[in-house]
Amino acid sequence: MNALVATNRNFKLAARLLGLDSKLENSLLIPFREIKVECTIPKDDGTLASFVGFRIQHDNARGPMKGGIRYHPEVDPDEVNALAQLMTWKTAVANIPYGGAKGGIGCDPGELSISELERLTRVFTQKIHDLIGVHTDVPAPDMGTNPQTMAWILDEYSKFHGYSPAVVTGKPTDLGGSLGRDAATGRGVLFATEALLHEHGKSIAGQGFVVQGFGNVGSWAAQLISENGGKIVAVSDITGAIKNSKGLDIPSLLKHTKENRGVRGFSGGDPIDPNSILTEDCDVLIPAALGGVINRE
Amino acid sequence: MNALVATNRNFKLAARLLGLDSKLENSLLIPFREIKVECTIPKDDGTLASFVGFRIQHDNARGPMKGGIRYHPEVDPDEVNALAQLMTWKTAVANIPYGGAKGGIGCDPGELSISELERLTRVFTQKIHDLIGVHTDVPAPDMGTNPQTMAWILDEYSKFHGYSPAVVTGKPTDLGGSLGRDAATGRGVLFATEALLHEHGKSIAGQGFVVQGFGNVGSWAAQLISENGGKIVAVSDITGAIKNSKGLDIPSLLKHTKENRGVRGFSGGDPIDPNSILTEDCDVLIPAALGGVINRE
Amino acid sequence: MNALVATNRNFKLAARLLGLDSKLENSLLIPFREIKVECTIPKDDGTLASFVGFRIQHDNARGPMKGGIRYHPEVDPDEVNALAQLMTWKTAVANIPYGGAKGGIGCDPGELSISELERLTRVFTQKIHDLIGVHTDVPAPDMGTNPQTMAWILDEYSKFHGYSPAVVTGKPTDLGGSLGRDAATGRGVLFATEALLHEHGKSIAGQGFVVQGFGNVGSWAAQLISENGGKIVAVSDITGAIKNSKGLDIPSLLKHTKENRGVRGFSGGDPIDPNSILTEDCDVLIPAALGGVINRE
Amino acid sequence: MNALVATNRNFKLAARLLGLDSKLENSLLIPFREIKVECTIPKDDGTLASFVGFRIQHDNARGPMKGGIRYHPEVDPDEVNALAQLMTWKTAVANIPYGGAKGGIGCDPGELSISELERLTRVFTQKIHDLIGVHTDVPAPDMGTNPQTMAWILDEYSKFHGYSPAVVTGKPTDLGGSLGRDAATGRGVLFATEALLHEHGKSIAGQGFVVQGFGNVGSWAAQLISENGGKIVAVSDITGAIKNSKGLDIPSLLKHTKENRGVRGFSGGDPIDPNSILTEDCDVLIPAALGGVINRE
Amino acid sequence: MNALVATNRNFKLAARLLGLDSKLENSLLIPFREIKVECTIPKDDGTLASFVGFRIQHDNARGPMKGGIRYHPEVDPDEVNALAQLMTWKTAVANIPYGGAKGGIGCDPGELSISELERLTRVFTQKIHDLIGVHTDVPAPDMGTNPQTMAWILDEYSKFHGYSPAVVTGKPTDLGGSLGRDAATGRGVLFATEALLHEHGKSIAGQGFVVQGFGNVGSWAAQLISENGGKIVAVSDITGAIKNSKGLDIPSLLKHTKENRGVRGFSGGDPIDPNSILTEDCDVLIPAALGGVINRE
Amino acid sequence: MNALVATNRNFKLAARLLGLDSKLENSLLIPFREIKVECTIPKDDGTLASFVGFRIQHDNARGPMKGGIRYHPEVDPDEVNALAQLMTWKTAVANIPYGGAKGGIGCDPGELSISELERLTRVFTQKIHDLIGVHTDVPAPDMGTNPQTMAWILDEYSKFHGYSPAVVTGKPTDLGGSLGRDAATGRGVLFATEALLHEHGKSIAGQGFVVQGFGNVGSWAAQLISENGGKIVAVSDITGAIKNSKGLDIPSLLKHTKENRGVRGFSGGDPIDPNSILTEDCDVLIPAALGGVINRE
Repeated sequence: MNALVATNRNFKLAARLLGLDSKLENSLLIPFREIKVECTIPKDDGTLASFVGFRIQHDNARGPMKGGIRYHPEVDPDEVNALAQLMTWKTAVANIPYGGAKGGIGCDPGELSISELERLTRVFTQKIHDLIGVHTDVPAPDMGTNPQTMAWILDEYSKFHGYSPAVVTGKPTDLGGSLGRDAATGRGVLFATEALLHEHGKSIAGQGFVVQGFGNVGSWAAQLISENGGKIVAVSDITGAIKNSKGLDIPSLLKHTKENRGVRGFSGGDPIDPNSILTEDCDVLIPAALGGVINRE
Repeated sequence: MNALVATNRNFKLAARLLGLDSKLENSLLIPFREIKVECTIPKDDGTLASFVGFRIQHDNARGPMKGGIRYHPEVDPDEVNALAQLMTWKTAVANIPYGGAKGGIGCDPGELSISELERLTRVFTQKIHDLIGVHTDVPAPDMGTNPQTMAWILDEYSKFHGYSPAVVTGKPTDLGGSLGRDAATGRGVLFATEALLHEHGKSIAGQGFVVQGFGNVGSWAAQLISENGGKIVAVSDITGAIKNSKGLDIPSLLKHTKENRGVRGFSGGDPIDPNSILTEDCDVLIPAALGGVINRE
Repeated sequence: MNALVATNRNFKLAARLLGLDSKLENSLLIPFREIKVECTIPKDDGTLASFVGFRIQHDNARGPMKGGIRYHPEVDPDEVNALAQLMTWKTAVANIPYGGAKGGIGCDPGELSISELERLTRVFTQKIHDLIGVHTDVPAPDMGTNPQTMAWILDEYSKFHGYSPAVVTGKPTDLGGSLGRDAATGRGVLFATEALLHEHGKSIAGQGFVVQGFGNVGSWAAQLISENGGKIVAVSDITGAIKNSKGLDIPSLLKHTKENRGVRGFSGGDPIDPNSILTEDCDVLIPAALGGVINRE
Repeated sequence: MNALVATNRNFKLAARLLGLDSKLENSLLIPFREIKVECTIPKDDGTLASFVGFRIQHDNARGPMKGGIRYHPEVDPDEVNALAQLMTWKTAVANIPYGGAKGGIGCDPGELSISELERLTRVFTQKIHDLIGVHTDVPAPDMGTNPQTMAWILDEYSKFHGYSPAVVTGKPTDLGGSLGRDAATGRGVLFATEALLHEHGKSIAGQGFVVQGFGNVGSWAAQLISENGGKIVAVSDITGAIKNSKGLDIPSLLKHTKENRGVRGFSGGDPIDPNSILTEDCDVLIPAALGGVINRE
Repeated sequence: MNALVATNRNFKLAARLLGLDSKLENSLLIPFREIKVECTIPKDDGTLASFVGFRIQHDNARGPMKGGIRYHPEVDPDEVNALAQLMTWKTAVANIPYGGAKGGIGCDPGELSISELERLTRVFTQKIHDLIGVHTDVPAPDMGTNPQTMAWILDEYSKFHGYSPAVVTGKPTDLGGSLGRDAATGRGVLFATEALLHEHGKSIAGQGFVVQGFGNVGSWAAQLISENGGKIVAVSDITGAIKNSKGLDIPSLLKHTKENRGVRGFSGGDPIDPNSILTEDCDVLIPAALGGVINRE
Repeated sequence: MNALVATNRNFKLAARLLGLDSKLENSLLIPFREIKVECTIPKDDGTLASFVGFRIQHDNARGPMKGGIRYHPEVDPDEVNALAQLMTWKTAVANIPYGGAKGGIGCDPGELSISELERLTRVFTQKIHDLIGVHTDVPAPDMGTNPQTMAWILDEYSKFHGYSPAVVTGKPTDLGGSLGRDAATGRGVLFATEALLHEHGKSIAGQGFVVQGFGNVGSWAAQLISENGGKIVAVSDITGAIKNSKGLDIPSLLKHTKENRGVRGFSGGDPIDPNSILTEDCDVLIPAALGGVINRE
């Protein structure tokens, strides 16, 4: 089941429980606005390359729309549509005065040089600058983008609208970004896990955790859980997976990962098959890689 | 084969003949910008209804984009995408300083009251007014829309940008529309037919014509061909088809059609099966209904 | 004496006391800007109806102008002019950085359906949107308008200027309206009454009050005075007047009024002639209906 | 009967003849927008003076509104309202794509210095610049204003909107004003007179004319009629009236008037009582002073 | 050595210590934008006068640019350029999110009437209004300008951009200026002096001070130092210099200065040669007049 | 004498002849606005480089300002100032409704790659886009710039202001540039030469011409003079100088120059010392290189 079908199904279940009028339900499912633009840049070798960028703005009834911009070779419109919709529900459930959006560019950021990424981001911003803004839609980093990407958007946007640091979140702290933004998603995992365990009369301390994914989310989650007394027994990323049933030494693992661009080869644990990470023995499994990994199979 | 696949294939054949660089070819295939918006209106009975409107802007390298806006229950994004692209090639081949675009709303104009159509058109205009304009993209009527639709767009657009009669073509002549716009497409059929016959050493006069479709295009084509000495031996529309091998009396048929909202029942010819219209005996067959009717089958 | 004549006379008395230069006095009397617009809407039955809307902006020397928008069949330009001027003096006396304005539409809101009121409000907003704004002039509800009216203005204004919740006050709290706004005017009556009594060495508690008018202002004033120990001995509204020299039970009266759209028929008191309400025996008389009721006659 | 009452009565008579729906009639009588602004300037002696300026925009359904701006101590809102409405009918009858408006400032231009007039015009322009424009409303000179006034409006408007020579007509030819604009109204009198005489089988040549008013309109009318063979037997202006039944020598009279700021004292005719000018013996009487001079009395 | 040469030399020394790349150093030396405009006003006697105004915007990488506007007959572009650059370093060192700018008009404010100064300031604002703003560049008073000047800028700027009190600092407190702004620079001298003395194990109390310059900066510095126990032994301004080795009575001197527009003639001390003020015997010398007074000579 | 001193002296001589008021003279000498901006670009090797760009807008009293943008390592502000002023006089003398401006970037276009030139032009356009425009200031090519440069300006400007082909002249004909623009300056030399010879009773035919400079101006002048019967006896450019007293074969020389990027080595004439070109024997000397070559020395 693709992401959009799943999200729509979940929304419809919720709508039924809320007794929503079918017309209102239908109206809430249709995004407010979807935009798709061609972004053509000169590559470093002088040839031209065209990429498709888009932004799906789901709903702004509760305030300016919020949502990330991702750079990924397989950006799937349906998935982004689903994620935009989920942003609407997320901001509503958290009761903050924002709506939901999501966007991206179909490109492989790993195959573009820094200056190609800068040019691509600036061209994309030129194409959508009239449709985003402090009171309209405020992007943030997502998969494949980072504070530097936000800095480029901020700078390019400001050429058109004057100095506008508030047009993106997740920008570098030097440009007014929030402290703690880096750890925020991982810290959210910690809080959610604490709350869940608390409901079952347990706490982080003493539990064994498996973390799938060791990027920004997974590594911060592992670090914070570990600082709160949890034992991380296995982690995986795209380079491999490692296990140590006595608990991995997270500070060492973070240092190793930084130096080796991945967990593979970490001496403080045993390598295991990454495909088995989801079935490793543990008290709590934290899936922090892609969506949709937990399914019937 | 759907319209977009067909159009892309034709373009690629042309690109090969022109020896276009594959990157330029790719860039020409990707539309400049696609926009999709939700349009919610109160219906006359007070309930809300949501429709999806969109505009596909293919290319503006040669000037402001031009292209119709159609209202149809089955507006197919791929078909509209193809039609937008064809507008780019059409304006380029005619060497006028315009680019190509196309848009529409997924609705059945026959099931909406005039005031619902007005509200829908105004809401759609509110959603795209920043993306069209005299120097950017100039809409025109298309299937399911007419000069009145353009008048609504013009009026709503002007609320945002000041009096702007040039933002649409095909508007009522009272609001500055061009004389002859009504007959223009049908007259184009006449000119193309004349040119084609001329290449074969023939002329309109004395030829027998079959016209599929008797809407704005077909009826004007029939009238003009008839005025130029051509013999219209059969016509069809969604109500039926009629045939008169001695030539139909077009002025009478036009009067009948206006009074009866269709050709069915016209006494100056014999009813035939509309499905056989494309295979009726004639010198020239003019398909003036939907696209894609002439195919392998 | 009409409202404008009275207000101007009072201002001139104050100007004399302040020793104002006659040219400055004259300049302060002339409003900064007055605007009158035609608002034509389709009624629910399809016919057109035209209404005259206006906004009188008296003075912005101390900050953005503030003032209500009223819907009333007999909106009198002179009265509104006077009320706009009074807003200037009111914000100045309260020493808040705002100026004064007032506006309205000549219509009977009771005879328009909700959707007609919505269309009328939106058309009026389209006509004045360039002349109001966060830094210019910020409307609020007044007689015949309410938070829903402000929500329509906010939504229509935002189509032109982007999401702008601060362009009106008195909007629904869901859209960012202030808590307590509903009771604010009535609470002001309480504070003013307390201050006045205090000057005479008295307090609310134990006094007998007559309240003319039981709309938003009068009913909140009665409720708050009652909560502070005051005894409400008589109230009136357009449906009638009731009296209870032992004090009316305000919570019951509020319930009755809500259910019966007026005070008439309330069983916790005796009906009296509404015309005699101003001469009922009491310690404090609170006129909370229209202006100008206390005069020589 | 005041000007507005008269104009409305005439319009209603016309509406009845046209069989206009009463709601449409009502909508056509209400002006599109009326604006009144306070204009405060420092006078040359350093004191402040406040004037009321206004602009009544009657109708823009047929295109940008057109109409003069007059400076006169007794600018009467009702009269200006009537004149704005008449501009709408005038542009419609002449079938040019414009609507109607009129405006003015309540001041005595004869008592203001050139630099005070400049400051007043610039302040007035600052207050209405957002409401006029090439596509919206295009002012022109009128009583008490002239090409220099238009130049000030043009210059001040351009500070806000960039170089915009088309925002006013009747500007100096050096700034792009039309040649012949000066004589245009007087030439219109000539054309209308010719047409009227033609209907009665007569022509200008040989007729005797009385011209009331010898300002821009009257003096050009007299000159052009005279050049076409008409005999001007009497003229008047605010300084006096003169008569010569053999025909006044218009070139000499123009020279005299320029040198003496009025017709009084012209030696080529006999002085008469200006009040009797309307009853002087003539073939054609041309009233070119104020409106409303021809009435029951 | 002129101010710009000196400032650039100091910056280069700092750059060398920081190990800055020579290209970055070069880029930091070139101002972001310099603008020079002609300001023509009518003088009170009706003649025209033209002045050159300018604004040098040095750097906005850390936020909106800040810096004064000075009116002085010998405004030297190089000096202003240097001062703009120093504003960049000053805001950076103080770690506030602003950049640096400076501007001025080449005029002698003492020879212009108040209304000429107003006209000049308004024309200058008209010429630069698009280049300053809350998010871009925020002017402040400087030599020859004061809160009234800022009020004129604010008012004129607001005609173009709506009510914008934040576009200048140092405005009158009635218009939203900060309390304490008047004393701020002098108070900074106090703080810096305190810090410097503290480093040498001393304090303000008991030290003897010489203050060169008794304008806004010097007089506040003297007053505050005196209030903190310092002894002001000599002061000078353009009218003369006075000395009292027992300490001048600052409140009396302030009163004298206000009444006599200068320190000359103050009875509480002995007149001395103003040229010797820099070499008067003291513990701390405070140069609060022009820059560059302390040099090899 | 530098260019600005010379131009000002000439203007003052003219002003004296016209009897201009000294204040008006002064006002005409001060440019309307001068702007200087820092343009930082990444070079192809990834390092940053900063350039100073500027635009001097001399006068817009007669219409939008016109003037070239030059790229030259030694762009001298005084010279550009003089050239901007000369544009004002040139458009006034030719009586076209334009004013005068000139601008440039201090860079050596020969040392920048095409993509560096594109980036530099785009950054410069971003910095001045608010100060140029169809109604304000319309740039054109000049020394070191060409139609491609104008195309970049046009494209970058259009990102901010919508499709605006009229913002520059001298753009490629494919983008709407005027036919004949390439030859225009050279053709002007022909016309001026014809007029001058005509005054002396001579014509082009049969005269001997020396042309200093063989760039866009000189080569077109030589070609057109040659086509009109003139004999080109010597030409020079930065590569050398050639002479043929029987007349150079201009078509061959143009072909040689195109292939060899200069006149040096042309076989249809004899090489001479380029420094002697101004003193070669001829009837007419055409200096078409830099300004100021004809002086006392």
